[in-house]
Amino acid sequence: MEELTIKKIAVAILGATGLVGQWFAHLLRDHPWFNPSVIAASQRSTRKKYIEAVNWVLGSAIPDYVRDLEVVDPTPAAIAGVDDVDLVFSALPPEIAITVEPEFAKAGYAISSNASAFRLDPDVPLLVPEINPEHVKLIEVQKQRRDWSGFIVTDPNCSTAILSLSLAPLHRAFGLRRVIVSTMQAISGAGLEGLFALNIQDNVIPFIAREEEKIQTETLKILGSYQKEAVKPADFRITASCHRVSVSDGHTEAVFVETERKCDLEEVKNVLNNFRGKPQQLSLPSAPKRPVVVLDAKDRPQPKLDRFTGNGMSSVVGRIRSDESVANGLKYIVHGHNLVRGAAGSSILNAELLFKLGKVPK
Amino acid sequence: MEELTIKKIAVAILGATGLVGQWFAHLLRDHPWFNPSVIAASQRSTRKKYIEAVNWVLGSAIPDYVRDLEVVDPTPAAIAGVDDVDLVFSALPPEIAITVEPEFAKAGYAISSNASAFRLDPDVPLLVPEINPEHVKLIEVQKQRRDWSGFIVTDPNCSTAILSLSLAPLHRAFGLRRVIVSTMQAISGAGLEGLFALNIQDNVIPFIAREEEKIQTETLKILGSYQKEAVKPADFRITASCHRVSVSDGHTEAVFVETERKCDLEEVKNVLNNFRGKPQQLSLPSAPKRPVVVLDAKDRPQPKLDRFTGNGMSSVVGRIRSDESVANGLKYIVHGHNLVRGAAGSSILNAELLFKLGKVPK
Amino acid sequence: MEELTIKKIAVAILGATGLVGQWFAHLLRDHPWFNPSVIAASQRSTRKKYIEAVNWVLGSAIPDYVRDLEVVDPTPAAIAGVDDVDLVFSALPPEIAITVEPEFAKAGYAISSNASAFRLDPDVPLLVPEINPEHVKLIEVQKQRRDWSGFIVTDPNCSTAILSLSLAPLHRAFGLRRVIVSTMQAISGAGLEGLFALNIQDNVIPFIAREEEKIQTETLKILGSYQKEAVKPADFRITASCHRVSVSDGHTEAVFVETERKCDLEEVKNVLNNFRGKPQQLSLPSAPKRPVVVLDAKDRPQPKLDRFTGNGMSSVVGRIRSDESVANGLKYIVHGHNLVRGAAGSSILNAELLFKLGKVPK
Amino acid sequence: MEELTIKKIAVAILGATGLVGQWFAHLLRDHPWFNPSVIAASQRSTRKKYIEAVNWVLGSAIPDYVRDLEVVDPTPAAIAGVDDVDLVFSALPPEIAITVEPEFAKAGYAISSNASAFRLDPDVPLLVPEINPEHVKLIEVQKQRRDWSGFIVTDPNCSTAILSLSLAPLHRAFGLRRVIVSTMQAISGAGLEGLFALNIQDNVIPFIAREEEKIQTETLKILGSYQKEAVKPADFRITASCHRVSVSDGHTEAVFVETERKCDLEEVKNVLNNFRGKPQQLSLPSAPKRPVVVLDAKDRPQPKLDRFTGNGMSSVVGRIRSDESVANGLKYIVHGHNLVRGAAGSSILNAELLFKLGKVPK
Repeated sequence: MEELTIKKIAVAILGATGLVGQWFAHLLRDHPWFNPSVIAASQRSTRKKYIEAVNWVLGSAIPDYVRDLEVVDPTPAAIAGVDDVDLVFSALPPEIAITVEPEFAKAGYAISSNASAFRLDPDVPLLVPEINPEHVKLIEVQKQRRDWSGFIVTDPNCSTAILSLSLAPLHRAFGLRRVIVSTMQAISGAGLEGLFALNIQDNVIPFIAREEEKIQTETLKILGSYQKEAVKPADFRITASCHRVSVSDGHTEAVFVETERKCDLEEVKNVLNNFRGKPQQLSLPSAPKRPVVVLDAKDRPQPKLDRFTGNGMSSVVGRIRSDESVANGLKYIVHGHNLVRGAAGSSILNAELLFKLGKVPK
Repeated sequence: MEELTIKKIAVAILGATGLVGQWFAHLLRDHPWFNPSVIAASQRSTRKKYIEAVNWVLGSAIPDYVRDLEVVDPTPAAIAGVDDVDLVFSALPPEIAITVEPEFAKAGYAISSNASAFRLDPDVPLLVPEINPEHVKLIEVQKQRRDWSGFIVTDPNCSTAILSLSLAPLHRAFGLRRVIVSTMQAISGAGLEGLFALNIQDNVIPFIAREEEKIQTETLKILGSYQKEAVKPADFRITASCHRVSVSDGHTEAVFVETERKCDLEEVKNVLNNFRGKPQQLSLPSAPKRPVVVLDAKDRPQPKLDRFTGNGMSSVVGRIRSDESVANGLKYIVHGHNLVRGAAGSSILNAELLFKLGKVPK
Repeated sequence: MEELTIKKIAVAILGATGLVGQWFAHLLRDHPWFNPSVIAASQRSTRKKYIEAVNWVLGSAIPDYVRDLEVVDPTPAAIAGVDDVDLVFSALPPEIAITVEPEFAKAGYAISSNASAFRLDPDVPLLVPEINPEHVKLIEVQKQRRDWSGFIVTDPNCSTAILSLSLAPLHRAFGLRRVIVSTMQAISGAGLEGLFALNIQDNVIPFIAREEEKIQTETLKILGSYQKEAVKPADFRITASCHRVSVSDGHTEAVFVETERKCDLEEVKNVLNNFRGKPQQLSLPSAPKRPVVVLDAKDRPQPKLDRFTGNGMSSVVGRIRSDESVANGLKYIVHGHNLVRGAAGSSILNAELLFKLGKVPK
Repeated sequence: MEELTIKKIAVAILGATGLVGQWFAHLLRDHPWFNPSVIAASQRSTRKKYIEAVNWVLGSAIPDYVRDLEVVDPTPAAIAGVDDVDLVFSALPPEIAITVEPEFAKAGYAISSNASAFRLDPDVPLLVPEINPEHVKLIEVQKQRRDWSGFIVTDPNCSTAILSLSLAPLHRAFGLRRVIVSTMQAISGAGLEGLFALNIQDNVIPFIAREEEKIQTETLKILGSYQKEAVKPADFRITASCHRVSVSDGHTEAVFVETERKCDLEEVKNVLNNFRGKPQQLSLPSAPKRPVVVLDAKDRPQPKLDRFTGNGMSSVVGRIRSDESVANGLKYIVHGHNLVRGAAGSSILNAELLFKLGKVPK
């Protein structure tokens, strides 16, 4: 019954014409709490209707609500001119986000950002609500230090979001010592114009700019512990090798793990399947029933079959097996939708947590 | 001048209609030493001309010499009925090879096999001529023990062949402690009818039957040392995760290595680039000038661009970087052509070594 | 309000483990009129639960209702042993359908078939309900002639279903004289095991067995007129060239048309966009609002963006332009989902029409 | 023996860093008559070595001869500063070619261009040497009218080059009345940066800018007759529909033809297979033995298998069948390599004809 009494709050999408922006527009249609009434993008799009500004590439049609919205500049003033917004989603490129997001925070907005610009700032939460909801405490630290009335909350890089969901329950149950991950990432991870067809058709590109660094740093912050107004990074070691393959959506990651304590495979499977967090407890609208879903078939997960598990919000794990090359070795495959749990879906889940905790509206 | 005086020996190809068989037929056209005069395949092909029996799928046209050869049964008698062959290449499936190859060995033939059936037998050489040419000594052990006048020599699984060329120089220079490899393998690795289009288009399949086991065992035998009529496996540890991606030809492998001795990246690069072996010393016809080629570009090797390096016989290495997650950690990408160095090309190189060493003709 | 009073009828799916069968299972979940309570497939599947018998390859999860249903033989007796079914959907291969479907018709079942076996029989309706709902009159002719208490109704081949929706309004408005169609068909059109990856990756296959013949004959029957207990084929001429391309789902067709009467492009667009038929009048549950949707963008329709238009039940037309090479020449592109409007969706729409017209239950 | 006495002439490649430019560099390695000693490209490349300026994407390694050549401006002065060149190949984009090519012609250079800028100018030959070698007579008309000491010769658009080779023998033998062509074009046809991966992976794009117009006009000029200092276009009618598919290289075209005279299929096959022209008579180095190769297999030609027929210089035809929808109707598939016969290879063949006819050197 509670749902009936909630008055939706107006939200804005910054960077709404890019690929992640399109996913925000898609996932926020019919949202029970958020009303996406303002659409902002770079100058070449402004003053156009969204339908005219966007090169819509999602397989589902552009939602009706957003077709005729006029695109405005990504500035607090421009947004205030359209609606009284409390919450701002950011799908801005990092080089734009770094100046634009603080302007919004200064102006009192809550920003749920998918941009990488502030993820590693010590007073900015890098949230995966199933894993580290207590990191929201950094918001107060951030507001105080920066003298902002609003604040910025971030979500991780796509590969990291998917990976960390599988690592968190293992870390709690067995203690991680070392993680080695090798990714096979979808072309949509490069954005609308990030990759030429000639370069990836019938090919593998064994390099994605800054991706390995992001996995190696963000994972440790996400699994870190909140202590004295700061996050102490998790103390295991992690290394990544990142590769682009010819798949539309969905990142697949081969993970090799060494744990502190011996772990039997049935136990691992149970720990992953039974993992639940704050979003599940609070029944947040975008929370999947199971953040991690373990498949038993010998050849899963696969992007084509599993990317939309939990509406794209679950990490799907398969092929859990022992790694005999090291003490307490484990290996498995994890897969997730790079634009849902790996981008827009995560930002929305973060915002839902903030809303439920009363951090927005102001 | 030496070339002029060589009289070609007749050779047979068993399993000539399969994908590896086609590559044998292709690579052996115009071979300076071997004259492929007998073509054998399973019963549904026999008594047909090769052109009628084969579903030729190579991008280069079927060689003239082989078009009209009549396909015979893969038996010593059938082959002897066509030509006086000294050397037999086997591209038979393992469940056939296990009975057929010994018949040939018993009948006095030298078999250079790409089949997996005997690779791990203690008295059968698993040859990569740049790495372990001394393993040919097992031939005498094998003949004696089994009371064969002929013998079987094998080459490794495709992923292993490509990987081991990059590991051997590192093992010699720095001592390997542990190897972790994650593969992205081409669809041609599954053979002509091993994979349905529906299952791999826009997809990654994170499982290849028996592939991880092959990498984990074969690599240690290849890098092992010949001691007292046996091969003592190398004593480092190795673990693999194998995946199929939507690429026509060429396997890409992400390798994480821990070495005994500290290694600096320039040194690693030099050690790999300067690696040479017996095939290069002996100028074997199929030997690439450089068994391992290191590329400096940040996003190489790539299947589309690099699969034919060294006519498909080189392992191409790139992205050599430190792995800070472990002491003496190193990571890199290695790529090679799965049907040339990974299959038919390796068997031919093995046969060339045997020929040059006087092991064939009898 | 009507919906509330409808009691669902039990239906069976024959050939339920194949690709079209999987789409039946998917599309019939939560159907307002039909309760798919019996699942039949070939002997190697029977006595297993559906989840164990099927190699489920749809991107959406296998529906809960069907997971644990036991697969039975595709015989009237086996089906009667499970539930009192009135309507049977057939996704059987044609060589099975030709004997199995008549057994069901004889036993009194209404069969809505996607198999090609009976499509061209003079007393069997080849239905596209928007185009030729009056062809259902053939049912009585069929029952009488064959002395069946049940009957068979068929839907067209995938390419034909998609094409004919675009041709029907043009034929009515301008009179078709000649149609030339060149298809670019998805790999899923070949079924689960109809195409090897090696043959289509980085390739085009300019041949699909019997497809051109199907388009050339079925289209004329569909657009034919019911006269004196028979269908008189439409009298324009039609020719097809069929090709497989590396696309997962959705057939694209380049159409060149010559009409009797001059047609201006705006008029053509209106005629297509405004086309409606019986399913729309009757608000059949699977009827798309618009059977034909015209897109204005210069580079549409595209499989990736448009295959799910009208939930996969619309034909999407674009690039309508004059063909100056002939009098009254027109050319355009039409696209549709080969497994929805091109297969299971069409059979379901046919059954909905029959249900609404009182042809089922008996 | 003739070859031994030919002194190679120096040639330049304009637009050498683009995709067609790379194919020029590749195909001209070891050319018996032409020495490609000057490499020109746009300003962002000049003053760099070719290896540094180019993003080499061909599967074969960059030829040694060209690696260290310094890239110069595409101006007569810059080129004259490097070598005494007689012949210039142009792979410039049309908007650059339109000003640059005349400067070279004015300065006395022979230009063999792959650019579209001047193809339809009445005094510029649009050459396919097997079809219309007599069109070289336009060179004198051109030089006179424009008062140039040099001249421009062009080759057709990729799809047109491939198509016209199949049409010419049919036109001669049976008289063409109408041609309807539907293309399935490779992604490399869009150049290095012409297509984003996101837009074509798992997709078909039914639009290629200006392609249909090019086919419709260029074909008629190519098959036209030289009369009174001009080319009279062929008088049949032609219409095209052009589509991009996910194939690396090689354009496939479905062709429907109506001829003046009745033609039997065996005759058609012979006429195509036996087609020869000036390049074959003169044994031009790049001339394929057979300009048109007919395949009998029911599912050929295919890009993966047939693109390199005749070293990429042959048009490969298959599936010749009657089209019963019209009098004297015929349909077939034609395939060719879009970057060899469809681009650089054609320009080189044109230049070889000019050289052999004494049009170059001046």
